[in-house]
Amino acid sequence: MSTLVTGIGELVTNDGDDLGILTDAAVVVDDGRVAWAGAASAAPAADALIDVGGRAVVPSFVDSHAHLVFAGDRAAEFAARMAGTPYDGGGIASSVQATRAATDDELRGLVAARVTEMRSQGTGIVEIKSGYGLTVEDEARALRIAGEFTDETTFLGAHVVPAEYADRRGEYVALVTGPMLAACAPYARWIDVFCEPRSPHAFTADEARVVLTAGRDAGLALRVHGNQLGHGPGVQLAVELGAASVDHCTYLSDADVDALAGSDTVATGVRIALATDCNPGTCYSSSMPFVIALAVREMGLTPAQALRAATVGAAESLLRSDIGRLTVGSRADLTVLDAPSYLHLTYRAGVPLARALGFGAAANGN
Amino acid sequence: MSTLVTGIGELVTNDGDDLGILTDAAVVVDDGRVAWAGAASAAPAADALIDVGGRAVVPSFVDSHAHLVFAGDRAAEFAARMAGTPYDGGGIASSVQATRAATDDELRGLVAARVTEMRSQGTGIVEIKSGYGLTVEDEARALRIAGEFTDETTFLGAHVVPAEYADRRGEYVALVTGPMLAACAPYARWIDVFCEPRSPHAFTADEARVVLTAGRDAGLALRVHGNQLGHGPGVQLAVELGAASVDHCTYLSDADVDALAGSDTVATGVRIALATDCNPGTCYSSSMPFVIALAVREMGLTPAQALRAATVGAAESLLRSDIGRLTVGSRADLTVLDAPSYLHLTYRAGVPLARALGFGAAANGN
Repeated sequence: MSTLVTGIGELVTNDGDDLGILTDAAVVVDDGRVAWAGAASAAPAADALIDVGGRAVVPSFVDSHAHLVFAGDRAAEFAARMAGTPYDGGGIASSVQATRAATDDELRGLVAARVTEMRSQGTGIVEIKSGYGLTVEDEARALRIAGEFTDETTFLGAHVVPAEYADRRGEYVALVTGPMLAACAPYARWIDVFCEPRSPHAFTADEARVVLTAGRDAGLALRVHGNQLGHGPGVQLAVELGAASVDHCTYLSDADVDALAGSDTVATGVRIALATDCNPGTCYSSSMPFVIALAVREMGLTPAQALRAATVGAAESLLRSDIGRLTVGSRADLTVLDAPSYLHLTYRAGVPLARALGFGAAANGN
Repeated sequence: MSTLVTGIGELVTNDGDDLGILTDAAVVVDDGRVAWAGAASAAPAADALIDVGGRAVVPSFVDSHAHLVFAGDRAAEFAARMAGTPYDGGGIASSVQATRAATDDELRGLVAARVTEMRSQGTGIVEIKSGYGLTVEDEARALRIAGEFTDETTFLGAHVVPAEYADRRGEYVALVTGPMLAACAPYARWIDVFCEPRSPHAFTADEARVVLTAGRDAGLALRVHGNQLGHGPGVQLAVELGAASVDHCTYLSDADVDALAGSDTVATGVRIALATDCNPGTCYSSSMPFVIALAVREMGLTPAQALRAATVGAAESLLRSDIGRLTVGSRADLTVLDAPSYLHLTYRAGVPLARALGFGAAANGN
């Protein structure tokens, strides 16, 4: 069945290198894909019709970095950090404890609620990482549950060294790259590692290289958490191993920027992905509009650059060309804004304007 | 008819000088007022029952500074400012032009949509300013419409000097303090002025004193926009004239702080009100949760201080003791959070968690 979505005051297609904006536009969706996009006055007939009343439509946000499989509550830790307690990744242990203690149905319910919350804020595809199980069984369970909600599943057994292995780091790396990887690889597309020598809980460059190499040998594609807490080896390692994405990058040296610019890893120059990093410790926000608003107000991106980064940029960090755009053949992930223009995503910071229509789910079941 | 609201995992009452938190609590609402608050297990019977399922309940936010009566769209101006164009208040002219051109019903519909949007994000009482009409008829119309939505109406004829009076500033001040004030005072509780000598569009200390004094003589209470674009006379003027509130205060000298601390104007020391300043130019956000999150993340308030400032602090800036608290006799403005604790307002920044239940409207019709 085909659906004509019309009455679109402003349509962002991301066709080409800019936003590819059409005004007074319409889109025809068929079988979860964009079958046609153009002027509303020239739209072909379809089986069903939705009129969005002059609102703006953008490609649904692609959230390329999210930690959604966890139980427990860390709001008090967050309040302490706001009062000055520094973050070193150590709080992850409390999420690990609660996640291990949760039943499958409890975890599934928590992930479902978070994914629903994301869609209600305009996100189409979300990448979901494991990393709060840190045993063979708990990591495999996290990825099995994550796979019920997305194809973009990431094995993050190397999130932190769990407390019980604090004095046996080598044994934990062997576990991650041996039985844990074997149990998780069938449920994962990606492998990721928290490479941060400054944190006693995270992994050195040498440890991270062992983890990523083993993952690649098992058929997984590579992502890296790097350069989050200070200057470090994460970016250089990601480039060396051809990772699709190196995330955080709060601290970049000139050499890091040169390495990124000269690599195929993260596309040359200024390609940026924005994601929520939704997680129970540093950022428990599921809102891509909030991320877009911060990127413009605090990081100097233009509203157009931020929207590109949150759609087609994030899609590229997932090596996906079928999402993040509303061109013919793309997944029909339409997000409607209760506003006349995408500019309102930043202009009206904090206001819940975005809602994913969800046609794209028909394209592959997620 | 009385209603028992029970299943409250965490109830913030603002009783006393801190949040006055009760856990596993209930509230009885009668005739728009809080009739009882305490442990759920000890709650009296009522005619109706609402179970909020363990969620947190806080006093509805009091938005003590909002410009909601305007037409037109300034998203493109916003995008230009994000790209570096400085703000001097000149863009207000485009909102004035569009507002004057709108019909009564158009303006009423726009205000209704904005107030609805605020309530859907947890706001109970909102102050609404005029200031985009700047003629006798258009200012009176703005306040008449604002009064359909709130008792907290503010005459802001001295928002900017309209373009047609640019060379006759004295004549405009005479208009504001003469026929415009006479036409507006019946619809207004407050008078406000944009005192900012750095902007050619705003008012000097001498002009602002004339405006505020005339307003006081007409029976209005005083508010001031001051110290927004740089150090200036706004705070000192507000203290001199006993204004209830001086808003913005982006630039404060030591002398300004001393003046505030030694005055009854803004209560001694550290009493702070948070508000959206929802307006079409500098900040078109209607979201008090967004304001709270920014205050904690960027301005160093604790989550508890920020919630106090957004409820009881803002109520005090409106000289209201019946709102911003959930103590017996207060207006029953309950806001439910889809979260176990008020901490989540900051912890889950950008996520739409808050919703006003709206019982309080029965207390006085707004």
